[in-house]
Amino acid sequence: MNKVRIGSTGLGRLGLRHAENVVSRINGAELTALCDVDKPMLEQTADRLGVKYRFTAFRDMISRKDVDAVILASPSALHTGQIKAALDAGKHVFSEKPLGVNVAECKDAEKAVESHPRLVFMLGFMRRFDESYRYAHDKVIAGEIGKPILFRAYSQDPEKFIAGSIAFGPHSGGEFLDMAVHDIDLARWFAGGEPETVYAIGGCYAHPEFAGWKDGDNVSCLMKFKNETMVFLFAGRTAPHGYNVETEIIGTKGILRIASVPQKNLVEVLDEHGVRKECSENFLERFDAAYVNEIQEFVDCIREGRKPEVTVYDGTRVSEIAYTCKAAFEQGILIKF
Amino acid sequence: MNKVRIGSTGLGRLGLRHAENVVSRINGAELTALCDVDKPMLEQTADRLGVKYRFTAFRDMISRKDVDAVILASPSALHTGQIKAALDAGKHVFSEKPLGVNVAECKDAEKAVESHPRLVFMLGFMRRFDESYRYAHDKVIAGEIGKPILFRAYSQDPEKFIAGSIAFGPHSGGEFLDMAVHDIDLARWFAGGEPETVYAIGGCYAHPEFAGWKDGDNVSCLMKFKNETMVFLFAGRTAPHGYNVETEIIGTKGILRIASVPQKNLVEVLDEHGVRKECSENFLERFDAAYVNEIQEFVDCIREGRKPEVTVYDGTRVSEIAYTCKAAFEQGILIKF
Amino acid sequence: MNKVRIGSTGLGRLGLRHAENVVSRINGAELTALCDVDKPMLEQTADRLGVKYRFTAFRDMISRKDVDAVILASPSALHTGQIKAALDAGKHVFSEKPLGVNVAECKDAEKAVESHPRLVFMLGFMRRFDESYRYAHDKVIAGEIGKPILFRAYSQDPEKFIAGSIAFGPHSGGEFLDMAVHDIDLARWFAGGEPETVYAIGGCYAHPEFAGWKDGDNVSCLMKFKNETMVFLFAGRTAPHGYNVETEIIGTKGILRIASVPQKNLVEVLDEHGVRKECSENFLERFDAAYVNEIQEFVDCIREGRKPEVTVYDGTRVSEIAYTCKAAFEQGILIKF
Amino acid sequence: MNKVRIGSTGLGRLGLRHAENVVSRINGAELTALCDVDKPMLEQTADRLGVKYRFTAFRDMISRKDVDAVILASPSALHTGQIKAALDAGKHVFSEKPLGVNVAECKDAEKAVESHPRLVFMLGFMRRFDESYRYAHDKVIAGEIGKPILFRAYSQDPEKFIAGSIAFGPHSGGEFLDMAVHDIDLARWFAGGEPETVYAIGGCYAHPEFAGWKDGDNVSCLMKFKNETMVFLFAGRTAPHGYNVETEIIGTKGILRIASVPQKNLVEVLDEHGVRKECSENFLERFDAAYVNEIQEFVDCIREGRKPEVTVYDGTRVSEIAYTCKAAFEQGILIKF
Repeated sequence: MNKVRIGSTGLGRLGLRHAENVVSRINGAELTALCDVDKPMLEQTADRLGVKYRFTAFRDMISRKDVDAVILASPSALHTGQIKAALDAGKHVFSEKPLGVNVAECKDAEKAVESHPRLVFMLGFMRRFDESYRYAHDKVIAGEIGKPILFRAYSQDPEKFIAGSIAFGPHSGGEFLDMAVHDIDLARWFAGGEPETVYAIGGCYAHPEFAGWKDGDNVSCLMKFKNETMVFLFAGRTAPHGYNVETEIIGTKGILRIASVPQKNLVEVLDEHGVRKECSENFLERFDAAYVNEIQEFVDCIREGRKPEVTVYDGTRVSEIAYTCKAAFEQGILIKF
Repeated sequence: MNKVRIGSTGLGRLGLRHAENVVSRINGAELTALCDVDKPMLEQTADRLGVKYRFTAFRDMISRKDVDAVILASPSALHTGQIKAALDAGKHVFSEKPLGVNVAECKDAEKAVESHPRLVFMLGFMRRFDESYRYAHDKVIAGEIGKPILFRAYSQDPEKFIAGSIAFGPHSGGEFLDMAVHDIDLARWFAGGEPETVYAIGGCYAHPEFAGWKDGDNVSCLMKFKNETMVFLFAGRTAPHGYNVETEIIGTKGILRIASVPQKNLVEVLDEHGVRKECSENFLERFDAAYVNEIQEFVDCIREGRKPEVTVYDGTRVSEIAYTCKAAFEQGILIKF
Repeated sequence: MNKVRIGSTGLGRLGLRHAENVVSRINGAELTALCDVDKPMLEQTADRLGVKYRFTAFRDMISRKDVDAVILASPSALHTGQIKAALDAGKHVFSEKPLGVNVAECKDAEKAVESHPRLVFMLGFMRRFDESYRYAHDKVIAGEIGKPILFRAYSQDPEKFIAGSIAFGPHSGGEFLDMAVHDIDLARWFAGGEPETVYAIGGCYAHPEFAGWKDGDNVSCLMKFKNETMVFLFAGRTAPHGYNVETEIIGTKGILRIASVPQKNLVEVLDEHGVRKECSENFLERFDAAYVNEIQEFVDCIREGRKPEVTVYDGTRVSEIAYTCKAAFEQGILIKF
Repeated sequence: MNKVRIGSTGLGRLGLRHAENVVSRINGAELTALCDVDKPMLEQTADRLGVKYRFTAFRDMISRKDVDAVILASPSALHTGQIKAALDAGKHVFSEKPLGVNVAECKDAEKAVESHPRLVFMLGFMRRFDESYRYAHDKVIAGEIGKPILFRAYSQDPEKFIAGSIAFGPHSGGEFLDMAVHDIDLARWFAGGEPETVYAIGGCYAHPEFAGWKDGDNVSCLMKFKNETMVFLFAGRTAPHGYNVETEIIGTKGILRIASVPQKNLVEVLDEHGVRKECSENFLERFDAAYVNEIQEFVDCIREGRKPEVTVYDGTRVSEIAYTCKAAFEQGILIKF
């Protein structure tokens, strides 16, 4: 089959990485078009990566016949509209989370996907494509840890990037939507069920700015799933040691921990600070391979006529749960789903 | 000063350990008397340890003038009564937790302690005497981790002792009272505050028996403290790997983890199972030194006319919180303190 | 620039991996030709990978004008001859170690490389392309650990592959040549010097077969480098836990350990065996990325007109040292270089 | 049986610790007498510990009838003489290593011990009394790791105490005698054999002072034992991270590592330096319990009429091996035992 011709929109850090990956690390695809409102950035990147078509308007990009698929790494508020437009234009769509900035938007996205059953739609839950998460999930499915009792997940951004977190904060949707969504996806994936109740708390422990948009710099929630699994999520912006994404699944027969030390690599340093592992700086470093794997899967699905494991409904469900966590946090109440 | 003459009651596993420790590992004390309803066990132990006086009735033991202090390692239901009787008989008292089997009993114990201001009363929160917990606490107090954001604690008994857990279950008070109390004490000690709300969940994931007395084999709770610290506690009876007591304090400037691997010792084994650390079997192994340190502190307090750091009010407070967790769990509700 | 057209010879495990990598993970190159004496294997692989030209004779492959470069993953005894023939045919050459099966052959290879100064020649010391080794090396060069005192390296194959090790044993050249060469390369790279003396020992601890060709199933050597660095190397065929390649550099100001736990991934398992990390199975798993990185560097050198960091002289030097270790081991003596 | 009345000589750091341990942590013994040439230190310590008899002359201490046993923590040069004198005076003897400052002295000590078969003589190889070493040794004896292939041991003092190491250096006997003796003892204990050859190297990597007395600041040796076990020892004075005593035994069926991270306790710190364990400061911290256990064993042997596992001949043998390592190091040669 011919190579999948991809047009990618959004040249923030992650969009840029996706573009670079398509050019140099993805098989069966080529980067045909780039789109961004920042024209100099667009031209410079397109030149560097050898991309033919450049657009400042998404609508123009999807009107091209020689673009088969799009990658959406644009601001969250644009996602639903771009998903619909691209599908309607006959393009396969890979979208970064979230599906939409509220549940109604997610439902719109669902309808668009349903209207185009031949097109591949995939949401960027990249952690499922990390080899360690995959390995752990295989063990859970194989029954090696028995029945899941507690699913615990931390998602922490480093304190040293706090200025960026604060600047982006008002547009982030809050920590449950911005950060915990990945953990909510993992919770459903590992525990195989849906939440029944949630209680959420948190606050501004170091940076009062977050209170301005009803968020905290660190938050957590405890959910009970219908299948009895307990789920504890913690999301924070002030990790002192680096980018920390760790997950634990306690089962009746075994326990799995993924990345409880967010080690940068296999080097251990012994010096005046003790015996230590240096840590991952950010999501691009930690999930470097996962970002490749997910786009490869998107391309393979297109070429092989398959559909991805994660559906648009998963995207909606994760958003619904995140919004419920956010509501529980903002109102300080226990919510039953 | 003369040696403190100790009478110890209760010859279960922990009571036996206390008795042995007084005989061979505590300075400034001697084991003068032992008390237990199991006469053969009593005689055999007293013979082995060279203890002069043996009693099957607690009241007889505390009537002796040559007993200065008592250690209570008796069934929980006897604690309050024995505390009062011993104090009234002029004895210093070291009691295993809990103070009483309900808050009213705890209040009675408080009054008894208040009535005897010259006597030393101490409750067995041995974790505070573990060198690792102590070391971590010193760092927190010194401000090395900044403001505490999240306090997370696990207390897990090994699955291989589940038969004992089930047999003892109906009398245990449930996991919050039986296991999580130590974590509640640590939470207050590390976070320096009091809970404002609690939500608790759990279930019987492997052993339906626990439902018979409204308990779970694994439970958890999420509390918000008045000082904003988030507190997540998990207690379980089915740990596959050993006796697991781990604690994490996430602060704004640093994070501390205590015993996140419950290693038996410093030996690492590399074999067909990978690279591994074998785990502690039980509380006596994990807290071996802490059990010595706490009794030594009790004896030193008596000899030096000091009072222990933990007061009877801490005992009551911990019980109140544990009962509230239990209520939240049993009713499936969010409770405000 | 046009893509580098690569012909690869040898379809053993590593040769196969190189071929697959060129097809799907290397930028700026294409796999134009494959060569192997096993015709069915050759055809099947070429079909699967979509390779146009297939050869059973290396000479035929290098006679094609539309092959720019070759990868040699053939039996060691063929290396020198193929290096010379390929260079004489005007092809860039990437060769797996060793340069030759004795020092005279290495010198022949040197001459061939010297005769073709415009061609890129590169030897497969892949560990230098592993991100952890690279990271550690950067620290050493930056002076972060001060002056190197001791360089310690282990290379261990898993016991579970012992049948293969024994079958291949008589042709392996012995453990110093077959396994320790990578560590010898690393020792020179990290310590920045040359050996002055070597003492080597070892034996057949589990498998007497190795004695048949004057080898051991586990061997070690202690070298003093001219710059004073101590170098301890250990190579074994009987690792109980997996494929173990670990390295330690003790310096006057810091110590670095690379992969002292040969963890398969970031998953930690807690079960009846304790708290454990599962281990890498083999070199293809451990050095997966390094095998890509080194071929990418080879291709980039060709396209950018650069020469690789490792020279043919390094290849000779490593072989000389390995042969000296082997002699010290076989004769049970201390050898001065 | 009555308490063993102990007289202890030498109030350096270790002697002081032994004295304190006898007073407060050893059962069945009392500290009756102290001896040291530093009279103010002697009086102050004896007052603090409540010791009745104080001596500045060892001969006077052993002339007392009410001293049953002595602990020798005096300078090495005095050991042999004090061992002989104490045994001739009918005292049980616990001596710190070494038996003597040359092999002839060790042989004298042997004769003295042989002349007093009823008296207990014990040498301070405290590592055998560390619970982790003991646990590992039990596994080796039980055959859990199969046949020992490689025994590797590091003994490293922290750089931060280098001033003391240099001041004491000329009297230390060099690193093999001062530090590696403990590892030589462990090598024989774990490998169950005797060395056949040794090659030793090293140098002054940070502190040229050590060359003044033919020592290095870091040294190593490789020995082949008669039973084929390879033994690699490394001793250094410049550890950047703390007091590091680690040991590895690679067997045909399993590998054991003892204290490969010299962790101070069970606290893990996550901060700007990464995820780290702080390290032991010195031997008193690392082997705190072992120092108690060995004296307890000495006392128990006396009270129970037993002899310790380690004999005087082990002491001589370890010294002979250390002197041979030292000779190999000084002359730069391979030595056959």
